[in-house]
Amino acid sequence: MIDTPLRGIIPPLVTPLKDDQHIDLGSLELLVNHLLEGGVHGIFVLGTTGECTSLSYSIRKTLIKKVTKQVNGRVPVLVGITDTAPEESLDLAGYSADHGADAVVVAPPYYFGLAQRELASYFKKVAEASPLPLFIYNMPSHTKTMISIDTAKEVADHPNVIGFKDSSANGTFFNGLIYAFKERKDFTLLMGPEEMMAQAVLMGGHGGISGGANMFPKLYVKLFEAADKGDLGQVALLQEKVMEISAKIYALGTYGSSYLKGLKGALSLLGLCPNFLASPYTAFDDEAMLKLKRHLESLSAIPK
Amino acid sequence: MIDTPLRGIIPPLVTPLKDDQHIDLGSLELLVNHLLEGGVHGIFVLGTTGECTSLSYSIRKTLIKKVTKQVNGRVPVLVGITDTAPEESLDLAGYSADHGADAVVVAPPYYFGLAQRELASYFKKVAEASPLPLFIYNMPSHTKTMISIDTAKEVADHPNVIGFKDSSANGTFFNGLIYAFKERKDFTLLMGPEEMMAQAVLMGGHGGISGGANMFPKLYVKLFEAADKGDLGQVALLQEKVMEISAKIYALGTYGSSYLKGLKGALSLLGLCPNFLASPYTAFDDEAMLKLKRHLESLSAIPK
Amino acid sequence: MIDTPLRGIIPPLVTPLKDDQHIDLGSLELLVNHLLEGGVHGIFVLGTTGECTSLSYSIRKTLIKKVTKQVNGRVPVLVGITDTAPEESLDLAGYSADHGADAVVVAPPYYFGLAQRELASYFKKVAEASPLPLFIYNMPSHTKTMISIDTAKEVADHPNVIGFKDSSANGTFFNGLIYAFKERKDFTLLMGPEEMMAQAVLMGGHGGISGGANMFPKLYVKLFEAADKGDLGQVALLQEKVMEISAKIYALGTYGSSYLKGLKGALSLLGLCPNFLASPYTAFDDEAMLKLKRHLESLSAIPK
Amino acid sequence: MIDTPLRGIIPPLVTPLKDDQHIDLGSLELLVNHLLEGGVHGIFVLGTTGECTSLSYSIRKTLIKKVTKQVNGRVPVLVGITDTAPEESLDLAGYSADHGADAVVVAPPYYFGLAQRELASYFKKVAEASPLPLFIYNMPSHTKTMISIDTAKEVADHPNVIGFKDSSANGTFFNGLIYAFKERKDFTLLMGPEEMMAQAVLMGGHGGISGGANMFPKLYVKLFEAADKGDLGQVALLQEKVMEISAKIYALGTYGSSYLKGLKGALSLLGLCPNFLASPYTAFDDEAMLKLKRHLESLSAIPK
Repeated sequence: MIDTPLRGIIPPLVTPLKDDQHIDLGSLELLVNHLLEGGVHGIFVLGTTGECTSLSYSIRKTLIKKVTKQVNGRVPVLVGITDTAPEESLDLAGYSADHGADAVVVAPPYYFGLAQRELASYFKKVAEASPLPLFIYNMPSHTKTMISIDTAKEVADHPNVIGFKDSSANGTFFNGLIYAFKERKDFTLLMGPEEMMAQAVLMGGHGGISGGANMFPKLYVKLFEAADKGDLGQVALLQEKVMEISAKIYALGTYGSSYLKGLKGALSLLGLCPNFLASPYTAFDDEAMLKLKRHLESLSAIPK
Repeated sequence: MIDTPLRGIIPPLVTPLKDDQHIDLGSLELLVNHLLEGGVHGIFVLGTTGECTSLSYSIRKTLIKKVTKQVNGRVPVLVGITDTAPEESLDLAGYSADHGADAVVVAPPYYFGLAQRELASYFKKVAEASPLPLFIYNMPSHTKTMISIDTAKEVADHPNVIGFKDSSANGTFFNGLIYAFKERKDFTLLMGPEEMMAQAVLMGGHGGISGGANMFPKLYVKLFEAADKGDLGQVALLQEKVMEISAKIYALGTYGSSYLKGLKGALSLLGLCPNFLASPYTAFDDEAMLKLKRHLESLSAIPK
Repeated sequence: MIDTPLRGIIPPLVTPLKDDQHIDLGSLELLVNHLLEGGVHGIFVLGTTGECTSLSYSIRKTLIKKVTKQVNGRVPVLVGITDTAPEESLDLAGYSADHGADAVVVAPPYYFGLAQRELASYFKKVAEASPLPLFIYNMPSHTKTMISIDTAKEVADHPNVIGFKDSSANGTFFNGLIYAFKERKDFTLLMGPEEMMAQAVLMGGHGGISGGANMFPKLYVKLFEAADKGDLGQVALLQEKVMEISAKIYALGTYGSSYLKGLKGALSLLGLCPNFLASPYTAFDDEAMLKLKRHLESLSAIPK
Repeated sequence: MIDTPLRGIIPPLVTPLKDDQHIDLGSLELLVNHLLEGGVHGIFVLGTTGECTSLSYSIRKTLIKKVTKQVNGRVPVLVGITDTAPEESLDLAGYSADHGADAVVVAPPYYFGLAQRELASYFKKVAEASPLPLFIYNMPSHTKTMISIDTAKEVADHPNVIGFKDSSANGTFFNGLIYAFKERKDFTLLMGPEEMMAQAVLMGGHGGISGGANMFPKLYVKLFEAADKGDLGQVALLQEKVMEISAKIYALGTYGSSYLKGLKGALSLLGLCPNFLASPYTAFDDEAMLKLKRHLESLSAIPK
């Protein structure tokens, strides 16, 4: 059972890959340990950062099995089950439940565009059928569909829906969620973009799915704690480091994938993960990696 | 082996469903017969109209097996293998080859946004690995990515890429394809929206993936033949019927799904298919069906 | 008085500029003569190709005065009055009427996004107040708003609305217009993108606002005539030249402005207009102009 | 001369109108007094909330003249000069300077889409020619163009560029600005959406262009002060009121204009402004106004 609201840093686990068919199991173990030692409050497997939709179902299941086993209840494990086919989402939800995961996370189906009424009905159907409690995941840049606050409220009435993750980067929207759920103290509101995590917590959110925590879990944990305590001096100090990482590591490429390429490239330089992205993406080439190495080395000291 | 260029009407087969887990096999057989008797020049299984991405892999495979078996080489069978996970696309391609399909059709992965260079590399990788020849499928409203003409040309250099289906509805783009491929007489250019099929053929395209042919295959076949012969009088006459169907059957709802809801609703009224849409979509309700019935009955005579 | 429907090629006149404050009056006269000698069926001043929205009101008025005077009733002169401030649109409409223009053309206000109901109400207000008959102009890539067919039909009921120009490049939409207005034989339907002009006429449209006619008016006039007569062989021949121009002249740059830069660059190479674009755009630099020159010289023979 | 950075609440002044041709001068004076008495730190005339682009130039100039005269140096007056024609923007800048305004604000030209390089060149040209210091204004939902952080940094090197107003609602972007300008203590960073003002100030921004301050200036001033002092308890209390206003007053309609309709409707109920929106918008109808009245009356106590 997951305690609600779920508070803190729940990194979207990067998926270490040897190639399109094989997880690098050694790196996976290393990375999960790195996160747990960094004090994270949960782990989110098969999110966007985990390249969920690029992975075969066989790889997705192996990942669920391995991570739940290794974590072994020390922190909650959330599993992304986003798909365009509800049957496949529910199959993953069942598999997650069977292997001891704590919750599942679902974004809107992302091929057909859906109206809000269709979205609400879809989420309620999944909530009804899922053996695990559900987080709703707003990711409009990838799914083409912005979940409205009214839809979020309607769906949250289902007892199996326990939280909402927002990756829209729209601060007006997130603050609208905080206002809309102000009477629902048990309902979890998590921020996607790590650059907005601290302010989300300052304003009343519960934490963040911060991708950079794969590299530097303690930094994001400390920033969360500072925001949670209202220590604005510490927030300012640590936030600047988060923004430095964002500017230097994620903004190198010119494509939509520069975040993922930068993150996985940096993890490989840190010895935590091979520099391989699942198709259709490809890793940075040598020239970009050289630049990334210089940027990584130029980072000011990160709290450990 | 498929003759190139592939010319004519290749309907995107509607998927008759009992519910989210079961194909209505009787209707499937009826519908395929209806199309073959209507003189279609091919059948495209698991396209957008076939609700490809909403169906479980198990259903997708059953569909491939049943349709290839029933068609039994009388016309080419094309199979949509579009997915976000290349491994799953290739698995479907292999399955299609094993069951005697003639070609596969692939749109860009639709969760992550891709740059043109990434797209080209992805398509070439799929072309290289696919046991069946490949059609590239441009569907920007659903995939978020418009394939550029330069990318199309680059990808078409791979010998396993034999055609391009364009559902952008952008006439400048389609005419740009015709110009770009004017020396490649073997390369097939197919029009997605049935409302543009006749003009596409008049301008040099090879045919259309016309959804309305599920209802009235002969109408679209005759319109194709008229356009192919340059019989403008006949084109004008039949095009008006196609536009009447578009205005009366597809434009009833207010959502993006009104085309699919209208088409499947009309097929159920014609006795060809249950009125069930795969989740996340839902069929028209009774009120909308009553209106659709009146519209369907008001259609002027369709050539048989 | 303008004859309806207005049929043929009505080029969107390029605006020859010395700099941001001054029209090149000599080039303007030259260019208008070039068009009239080329047999165009009308001239459209202050369209998107004429860089309408970039020009000061003083320049817009000078342009209206000079062109109407020079044309002197030989062909209809249409004037673009698109603006975000209705008062300014109507001021230009009044000025156009005072100087003998034949009609005005108005796209949706393009700063605020409008709902269809707001759009309809706006167009009817402008139609009511305009001293000249009105064409509605659909230009969603620039205005953010796609005019629906229902809105077009509703607005066309106003007696002062005489036509519709569609630059959406969406062939399904344009054919939808043709179907929707099939009983309104007097209502003019004009195609924006020159690459789609011939097929628009083949399917029942009345002509095109073809930008390339600034360079080669006779080509577009002949293509219109061929399509109008249903001479498909001639259409194929001339359409290929239009597509060659599109591929070689308009697609050189990487920005949205490459069409305008290519067109004005080519006109300067042809001695018809200075190579100056109104701010915020800038003309091609020397390197791009060299490439454009090679492309222009490589064009196959254009009918004269 | 304006002190930099400009800190605090600078409301985007609502434009009280009798009709499309006439300002309600009495209400204008009343409203400006209401803001000054509320303790605002500046006034922004002719912003998006002021319906800038819908107003004739004659009205825009009257507004500049009246407001600068009434304010008479008590707080800085900023004037929006956004236009698609640079000559008209500069004309307004000159007029603003002649009448004693303190700075001008310019968003990207909003008809043609611009590449970042073109944007940078445009802004530098305007900065060079403007007699008043310049704020850059990011408003992608209306201009179609997101100004990148690199462009912002490049443009900010011009000595006449003194600040940046961001209405993207993208918190990652705004925090990126704060990081990018961390060494430029004189450069002003202002938040557009009032729902994000407090957190922008907590994270290092300088204030907000808060539309709701037209109704309740003291609320926004107090919230700014609380955030500026780091008084998180007070921030939480006042932020909830800001979100209540946002949920109850701005979200009534279903169109993009519901913010403006709600704001102007509420101002009319408060006796501060006629309920008239400049074309192409229209005010709420009676039914919507009744609902708005109930919502307004249901607001919990606002600090005075």
